[in-house]
Amino acid sequence: MTYCVGMRLESGLLFASDTRTNAGVDHIATFRKMHAFALPGERLVVLLAAGNLATTQSVVSLLRARSTGDGPSLLSVRSLYEAAELVGAPLREVIARDAGSDGMNQGIDFGGSFIVGGQIRGEAPRLFNVYPQGNFIEASEDTPYFQIGEAKYGKPIIDRVVHYRTPLAEAAKCTLISFDSTIRSNLSVDLPIDLLQYRPDSFAAAEPYRISADNPYFNQIRTAWGSGLRQVFAGLPDADWL
Amino acid sequence: MTYCVGMRLESGLLFASDTRTNAGVDHIATFRKMHAFALPGERLVVLLAAGNLATTQSVVSLLRARSTGDGPSLLSVRSLYEAAELVGAPLREVIARDAGSDGMNQGIDFGGSFIVGGQIRGEAPRLFNVYPQGNFIEASEDTPYFQIGEAKYGKPIIDRVVHYRTPLAEAAKCTLISFDSTIRSNLSVDLPIDLLQYRPDSFAAAEPYRISADNPYFNQIRTAWGSGLRQVFAGLPDADWL
Repeated sequence: MTYCVGMRLESGLLFASDTRTNAGVDHIATFRKMHAFALPGERLVVLLAAGNLATTQSVVSLLRARSTGDGPSLLSVRSLYEAAELVGAPLREVIARDAGSDGMNQGIDFGGSFIVGGQIRGEAPRLFNVYPQGNFIEASEDTPYFQIGEAKYGKPIIDRVVHYRTPLAEAAKCTLISFDSTIRSNLSVDLPIDLLQYRPDSFAAAEPYRISADNPYFNQIRTAWGSGLRQVFAGLPDADWL
Repeated sequence: MTYCVGMRLESGLLFASDTRTNAGVDHIATFRKMHAFALPGERLVVLLAAGNLATTQSVVSLLRARSTGDGPSLLSVRSLYEAAELVGAPLREVIARDAGSDGMNQGIDFGGSFIVGGQIRGEAPRLFNVYPQGNFIEASEDTPYFQIGEAKYGKPIIDRVVHYRTPLAEAAKCTLISFDSTIRSNLSVDLPIDLLQYRPDSFAAAEPYRISADNPYFNQIRTAWGSGLRQVFAGLPDADWL
């Protein structure tokens, strides 16, 4: 599986993805699930991928190949909305090619999904969640974040902390804690984590920052968070009246 | 959906279940998912049910009907292992009757699963997780708890806090916090919560305690937990070096 988070906040965009892939439990590997299409000074489009690795890799390969041609591509579309459309189309194509129309074959789920976000000059930053069916929804001030993959373990802490006006550094901290909770409870999500922040109107080709098991900041907050939680928990009255 | 937790600790057994059922989002109701079969002084067998409500209700009805007859029943079996077997059999029957052998029909999942725990005189307390296929696993000192239904949101806090030697009152507190996280992040799990504690060798026909939205203890710990989490979070250094 996978865990990816994308946020569109007042202070900017945040993208995070783990790197573990597995087919069953005995074929485990590390793959980057964050893919950037950048024209510095003009646009940055970031894709986060979850689901069947063969499907999502094919989609990214097709998008890369098309971005060097004359047709519409992630480097030429004029809005993030069109970028989300461009991701949805090959997603449908690849699933239909590999699995048939229902997305399942021999009990295998060929589905995949993407978070697509970034900024194209002329627009504000935007963020989309592209479903396996190729349709998509856009983040709003009310719901400024999307998760794909193993989303449930790490959802409660984001729900408690993050809103549209959360500063980017605080959102990154919360996202890393959300990853920590997920990694502790689910074998199919693991380090390293790729993290990318984007400040509005910077149009910079930001490189994702890779957080490995020896990252001092990540280790500091995961340790402090764990002991802080246990302290808060210990401070609550026990249910000894039951 | 549903959220149920069963724990078998050194200090005793703990059972908790929510009461929300839904068919789609527009048919929401409140049903008890905790069912006790008791012979005071001799045995207590507790069932927690998740999955298709028609399936799990049928299973409980069949088990109740059979417990008044001459055949093997939850009131007559000599071990919790046999109790788990007795729950698995009608589960397979009902799913096959209503859905056919694969458990699916018209896109509907007819599956259900149970946590079965308790104590029968002559044995220590035991706890089983019965799958929709009718097979089951037993809790151990290494893995002293099971969850069924919407288990993922509330798993991280239990993973961090509960182990075999956790006192019952502390485990109850942790379980309620786990329910709070789940309820906040998932519409299909809601109050009231039924909670039942069982002390080893008491053989008491304990009544589940119902925790509603106006329960002072639950409201106290959910408020204190929320503000404690935010405090711990605020105390962690921001990722402003990114």
